[in-house]
Amino acid sequence: MTFRARHLLGIEHLAPDEIRAVLDLADRYVDLNRRTVKSSDVLAGLTQINMFFENSTRTQASFELAGKRLGADVMNMSVAQSSVKKGETLIDTAMTLNAMHPDLLVVRHPNSGAVNLLAQKVDCAVLNAGDGRHEHPTQALLDALTIRRAKGRIQRLTVAICGDIAHSRVARSNLILLGKMENRIRLVAPPTLMLTGVQDFGCELYDDMAAGLKDADVVMMLRLQRERMDGGFIPSEREYYHRFGLDADKLAHAKPDAIVMHPGPMNRGVEIDGTLADDINRSVIQEQVEMGVAVRMACMDLLARNLRAARGRRIVETTL
Amino acid sequence: MTFRARHLLGIEHLAPDEIRAVLDLADRYVDLNRRTVKSSDVLAGLTQINMFFENSTRTQASFELAGKRLGADVMNMSVAQSSVKKGETLIDTAMTLNAMHPDLLVVRHPNSGAVNLLAQKVDCAVLNAGDGRHEHPTQALLDALTIRRAKGRIQRLTVAICGDIAHSRVARSNLILLGKMENRIRLVAPPTLMLTGVQDFGCELYDDMAAGLKDADVVMMLRLQRERMDGGFIPSEREYYHRFGLDADKLAHAKPDAIVMHPGPMNRGVEIDGTLADDINRSVIQEQVEMGVAVRMACMDLLARNLRAARGRRIVETTL
Amino acid sequence: MTFRARHLLGIEHLAPDEIRAVLDLADRYVDLNRRTVKSSDVLAGLTQINMFFENSTRTQASFELAGKRLGADVMNMSVAQSSVKKGETLIDTAMTLNAMHPDLLVVRHPNSGAVNLLAQKVDCAVLNAGDGRHEHPTQALLDALTIRRAKGRIQRLTVAICGDIAHSRVARSNLILLGKMENRIRLVAPPTLMLTGVQDFGCELYDDMAAGLKDADVVMMLRLQRERMDGGFIPSEREYYHRFGLDADKLAHAKPDAIVMHPGPMNRGVEIDGTLADDINRSVIQEQVEMGVAVRMACMDLLARNLRAARGRRIVETTL
Repeated sequence: MTFRARHLLGIEHLAPDEIRAVLDLADRYVDLNRRTVKSSDVLAGLTQINMFFENSTRTQASFELAGKRLGADVMNMSVAQSSVKKGETLIDTAMTLNAMHPDLLVVRHPNSGAVNLLAQKVDCAVLNAGDGRHEHPTQALLDALTIRRAKGRIQRLTVAICGDIAHSRVARSNLILLGKMENRIRLVAPPTLMLTGVQDFGCELYDDMAAGLKDADVVMMLRLQRERMDGGFIPSEREYYHRFGLDADKLAHAKPDAIVMHPGPMNRGVEIDGTLADDINRSVIQEQVEMGVAVRMACMDLLARNLRAARGRRIVETTL
Repeated sequence: MTFRARHLLGIEHLAPDEIRAVLDLADRYVDLNRRTVKSSDVLAGLTQINMFFENSTRTQASFELAGKRLGADVMNMSVAQSSVKKGETLIDTAMTLNAMHPDLLVVRHPNSGAVNLLAQKVDCAVLNAGDGRHEHPTQALLDALTIRRAKGRIQRLTVAICGDIAHSRVARSNLILLGKMENRIRLVAPPTLMLTGVQDFGCELYDDMAAGLKDADVVMMLRLQRERMDGGFIPSEREYYHRFGLDADKLAHAKPDAIVMHPGPMNRGVEIDGTLADDINRSVIQEQVEMGVAVRMACMDLLARNLRAARGRRIVETTL
Repeated sequence: MTFRARHLLGIEHLAPDEIRAVLDLADRYVDLNRRTVKSSDVLAGLTQINMFFENSTRTQASFELAGKRLGADVMNMSVAQSSVKKGETLIDTAMTLNAMHPDLLVVRHPNSGAVNLLAQKVDCAVLNAGDGRHEHPTQALLDALTIRRAKGRIQRLTVAICGDIAHSRVARSNLILLGKMENRIRLVAPPTLMLTGVQDFGCELYDDMAAGLKDADVVMMLRLQRERMDGGFIPSEREYYHRFGLDADKLAHAKPDAIVMHPGPMNRGVEIDGTLADDINRSVIQEQVEMGVAVRMACMDLLARNLRAARGRRIVETTL
């Protein structure tokens, strides 16, 4: 077994063989999820706590179903950001939960690095479900699985990531993963929404969709946060759609079999044309959601194996 | 087996033998629910998602317990109406959920027809838990079960449905069901709260409780929505109670063994006298709640059987 | 077996041998919770409903995990206080739930006595998870277990309960329990926050931390409700911390091995110094949370045994 991580905090910490281990196992969970009876007992008796300091109906639902299908006892805690005022309190909350002996802690937090901090304080495996602008590792893994199933590989592809890259943890985790797997990555965004310091990742930068999408295998659109739309970031929704919204014309610059991705929820008519999003010959947006549950099952399964092994070692050490 | 439906969208689509199939199976689940150990595995490994676009503590609780007792993995999604702005977004939400492979989708939505629309987009069985002023089929089925257990039959009874009929999906589903089972239905309401076009259902209309309740076997009161009370619909709560609120005097016009029903939650002192509501010799309001869980178990069990059968056929067809 | 109660409404109703029965069983559940696989089937097929009329993330989480680990079907109902206006409505809500055949009903309510009232209306076992200023029995039991494990006994100890005693159901349940087990109890608070009529419990009263903590075995701090802080109850947070906040200096008056407790969530720098709260040589605050889950498992297990026995008797009586 090649998956060695204790936590899933970011793609940053995963080696290529660990990424492949997740994807391989997830492929098997895709099959399980397509059956009517889709239960498993690999997490039976284990406690999974979903702790969302930021609302996210779909990500939380995906983790919840993943855990329940694996037989875990799943508990959701929707922690309104308003009630948590200080970093200190985050730690108190974490310590309190830790004392309840969870085995898997799924955390989303608006602050970059908050999940890493929390992972240092607890005895269980922590999964980052998105922290600030930092990482969203299960999203990158589900995107990778979707690509691998559509393209037959997750190497040597040209992937264009387009839109609000500056504020996107999805973009960040994806470009780390795609970089590790030796793909050619292009970032396409207006200058106000481009990531700074992104040169380190070895990407090519574009502020023009025609050039950025040329011969791409994969076109990955990002959600434009509504709160950017009336700021100085973009001139107007209409102008943005005209220049950066994906439609059939812009997609024509990519390879004829290029796939279209979006992490959801979509702003139809802003970053993507609704008809294109629904075109089952090009869009794999529904597959991404499906892969999401399978990838989260795989991650929790692998982390639980490592947790059992680590605790077993600790018991042996204590006994000796 | 006589239950053929793929979804439970409304009583409208059910034949009398399908209604009887639900009630017969529900009778057995009543027995199960009265035991201390009330678990079953008929939905083990299946995923049930409760998607409530309108708050309803009691209906959601009833479906949640029904699913859990049958061994399903149950997930609640309380979708604040505010966050869903367009019909288009409803479809996106449905497509997203569908990609997570639920088997049973329980939906409540403020718009009539929204649940039917959604059912066309998904691969699982959909149960309508109330859509606008359209239908609330499990309520009508639980009412039918309650009546059948109290009266020994669900045919040839005189049933008076009283109160805010115009805005009530409960009334609508009930009068369709009671009509299909060949009962005599009377609607009793002030003209502002009477359903228009109701003649099609073959009901008798009254705006007087004494006449409407005369010799009735069943008196079914409806909840008066608070928002009607200060509008032009009724002159005042007090006046409404005086003319249409059920008390012992008005009930005296019905048969001596007539039962009193209410879908809850009640406005005591508005549409019903509190003492009468609590009178266990006349009121079957608690039984209605009890029957609710059993009827939902029966509906989900039957739909899951059809789902398995349909998926089995599809596999056979694909293999050939 | 020495646990005879049908409900857990307050420490008031428990005999010392019943308290010991809970603690003894909870000790075993502590061991279970420390394993990776921590499931049990003692509540399999039983329905537990958590009905919180007041928000409490940690208490609800503790009960939820307790029930899930014991195999119960657990349902949370967060009943916004705003939607429940009258005592009458509380009863209606209780009757409705009762008709759904729960076996264990966990209730928190802002009004003292509301849980007792509710317990009279239902057929299942009711656990008080905190009612007004009245009782919070599982908190007192988890505190007792924490003390017993740290001190080796829960008798003949000097326990100082400090802070906002007047408004605290935690203090009230604790002093009843500690009194029943023959401990010496001191209450330390400014006169505005002291309980009146507390003499009946045989406590010693102090308004000075040095004197109140002298030679104490256990120092139990209470949470200062934020809403007291700008009223007439305390002059200022800073002044309160100076006089009544627990820090190393004040703790030096207690026994050298005195333990520090707090029911959480803490106001660091108000009623307790943050460094002291985190000092694993003195503070047992995390242990309290851990014991909380175990104590709730023990209580529900014992109540379920009595429920089965009572229902068995009823069946025998009916059959004869």
